Amino acid sequence: MNAETLTPPRPADADALIAGMGARARAAAKRLAVASTAEKAAALHAGATQLRAQAAKILDANARDMEAGQAGGLTAAMLDRLRLDEDRLSAIADAVDAVAALPDPVGREIDRAVRPNGMELSRVRVPLGVVGIIYESRPNVTADAAALGLMSGNAVILRGGSEAVHSNRAIHAALAAGLAASGLPADAVQLVPTQDRAAVGALLRAQGLVDIIIPRGGKGLVARVQDEARVPVLAHLDGINHLYIDGAADPAKALPLAVNAKMRRTGICGATETILIDRAYSAPLAIVDALIAAGCEVRGDRDVAALSPHVEPASAGDWDSEYLDAIVSIALVDGLAGALAHIDAHSSRHTDAIVTESRATAERFLSEVDSAIVMHNASTQFADGGEFGLGAEIGIATGRLHARGPVALEGLTTYKWLVRGTGQVRP
Amino acid sequence: MNAETLTPPRPADADALIAGMGARARAAAKRLAVASTAEKAAALHAGATQLRAQAAKILDANARDMEAGQAGGLTAAMLDRLRLDEDRLSAIADAVDAVAALPDPVGREIDRAVRPNGMELSRVRVPLGVVGIIYESRPNVTADAAALGLMSGNAVILRGGSEAVHSNRAIHAALAAGLAASGLPADAVQLVPTQDRAAVGALLRAQGLVDIIIPRGGKGLVARVQDEARVPVLAHLDGINHLYIDGAADPAKALPLAVNAKMRRTGICGATETILIDRAYSAPLAIVDALIAAGCEVRGDRDVAALSPHVEPASAGDWDSEYLDAIVSIALVDGLAGALAHIDAHSSRHTDAIVTESRATAERFLSEVDSAIVMHNASTQFADGGEFGLGAEIGIATGRLHARGPVALEGLTTYKWLVRGTGQVRP
Repeated sequence: MNAETLTPPRPADADALIAGMGARARAAAKRLAVASTAEKAAALHAGATQLRAQAAKILDANARDMEAGQAGGLTAAMLDRLRLDEDRLSAIADAVDAVAALPDPVGREIDRAVRPNGMELSRVRVPLGVVGIIYESRPNVTADAAALGLMSGNAVILRGGSEAVHSNRAIHAALAAGLAASGLPADAVQLVPTQDRAAVGALLRAQGLVDIIIPRGGKGLVARVQDEARVPVLAHLDGINHLYIDGAADPAKALPLAVNAKMRRTGICGATETILIDRAYSAPLAIVDALIAAGCEVRGDRDVAALSPHVEPASAGDWDSEYLDAIVSIALVDGLAGALAHIDAHSSRHTDAIVTESRATAERFLSEVDSAIVMHNASTQFADGGEFGLGAEIGIATGRLHARGPVALEGLTTYKWLVRGTGQVRP
Repeated sequence: MNAETLTPPRPADADALIAGMGARARAAAKRLAVASTAEKAAALHAGATQLRAQAAKILDANARDMEAGQAGGLTAAMLDRLRLDEDRLSAIADAVDAVAALPDPVGREIDRAVRPNGMELSRVRVPLGVVGIIYESRPNVTADAAALGLMSGNAVILRGGSEAVHSNRAIHAALAAGLAASGLPADAVQLVPTQDRAAVGALLRAQGLVDIIIPRGGKGLVARVQDEARVPVLAHLDGINHLYIDGAADPAKALPLAVNAKMRRTGICGATETILIDRAYSAPLAIVDALIAAGCEVRGDRDVAALSPHVEPASAGDWDSEYLDAIVSIALVDGLAGALAHIDAHSSRHTDAIVTESRATAERFLSEVDSAIVMHNASTQFADGGEFGLGAEIGIATGRLHARGPVALEGLTTYKWLVRGTGQVRP
């Protein structure tokens, strides 16, 4: 915890630093793997209690980060992500308590079978081991990631952004105090004590010490992690999400869905970026007008631009853009086939949705769209672990391996095969 | 199929070759993802029929490989792995038919929930997409991998070893003829038409074209694949497996289990390499003698070497050796704790087993040993997808992500989240 007194390490020091942290994490992970649900929950409740008890210290630390951020020219949006107050800190502590109440995936039996020779086979969930989490400016990730990691029986190594360094250290210190009070090893949750980028490189190369790296942040961070990592990565890339309004859509559903999917919060990865409207749909102009009325810039293909003078013509790049802003691209398409072709060409395979009253069309869309989340008559803004009932989420995985879509406790586990015999030998 | 007339490509050509194959595989994968179980099974049965119908051609091709192998100085063991005859080819065709009879994982619902707002959520298995398989001299892998890939709805790109080039091409041609006859795209199963190693490099870097690479072969191949791949890899490393004979073991079970686990087939990855015997076990010498009588070289620690003049002293490296041969290392340990410590330090986390009549000791071993497969009173030689009732297997994964242990159809799938709403917007 005396990290601030360290001289930033040179690369070899970074490797040694991460090797030491990894070895301590591995030892802690062995203990956590056999910790009971009650032990893990108690440690998290103790951590939440410490977060509340140390609120003044944490808010002071955050004030230092805010001052540095203002002096360093962070944007208003970045400062807002960084800022803590009593309500936000209380919500962070509540979230840690909430994770403690989630069903424990560890030890859960996935399936079971008895072989003809009498051997009993079962697959049982076990923790991944040591999870590295590399994130940017939101200090709440320190608590969320620690809580999810711990509850799923993993040791975690956290590496937050330099903007939030004091906040992260203060939050981590509170959680570590909770762990110590509960009797689980404090090394179960470690924070990399330096902002030197060499430490990130060392973490990304820590094969054998770290079992998985989860980057949480913008495209630059995720791309660097994917490029440099020799440890497996569970990554979240773009959310170029589509809402397709079918000819058989009910306008009374389509209009609020379009506005909500795009405009409820434009900066989240589940926000819709492109709306595709079937040429057979009765009221395309009402969709365009409602979005404009809600404060959205509409960029349309030639057909959509012809509907309203307030539509800007879309450029080719618009169909591959994640705006994360009050901008939407809209195209008219030839029915389901046209929508499927557009989505296949442009979707980032995060979340895509259809609005239709035709069950058959909806089922074809659900079957044929190859995205992590595919929705019928629901807003893409629901693409979220909390909304899916998973409790908190560590991220939304857009890859195809291990876990896909919202990743929570189960996504931080693997399984092992247990074989119970009575002396069987293989003939 | 006219691959033999191609000039081996230079690296840029290799990239172009793999890009073309990948694009065709992706197109085929879209079709396969929505193919019915019956369509996939029919394609596999048609392939098996072609393997039988083209037996003469395939055996001729194999004879060419055998001649080249003998001229090239392949070992007897390598020649045996390469060799086909009518019985072996018939078994290959039967295995393809058997995969067609396995339960189809695609479309299977993993779980389902209804949210408080009425949205229905489900997770449904879907194919991974395009699977690259890089393997060495066994020509049966061409048929096994194609069958498992196809039945799980994936397109596969196969790259076999140069020793088996003619056999692989002939087997692939038969399977492609079966696909063509069945109406599924022939591009669903492609064989890289060159033995140029640059093509392997291109395959390993084919991000976006290939969803997963599965290497099947020796350590050199797997290490190269893991080192060079930018595509996710599902790999099988060592099988340094342990059999622990507890003080509470029944000698009538322990003795046959030790001999079977080590000696039934010494060259498979599930073979036991180290036997740990509790100092409290009553009959350690009988274990040593039985192994020696079965033709096994025994290398022991000081205590074991003191038991018999026929025991060689083990060196430090023995405890980390995958012999894949009639050699075993044996150590005496201090009960369960000693066994757990040795296994933690030396196991490759593939398969480890305990022999004991104590249920409590067995359950602690099953819980605390962190290996893909953990067994009680059963031979480690059962570590095999077929023995586990999975049908064929594409390999045994020793990593922790995605699939662990024997990988068959389910391991070649991922899932997507389906959300069925009635117009829900997120507040």
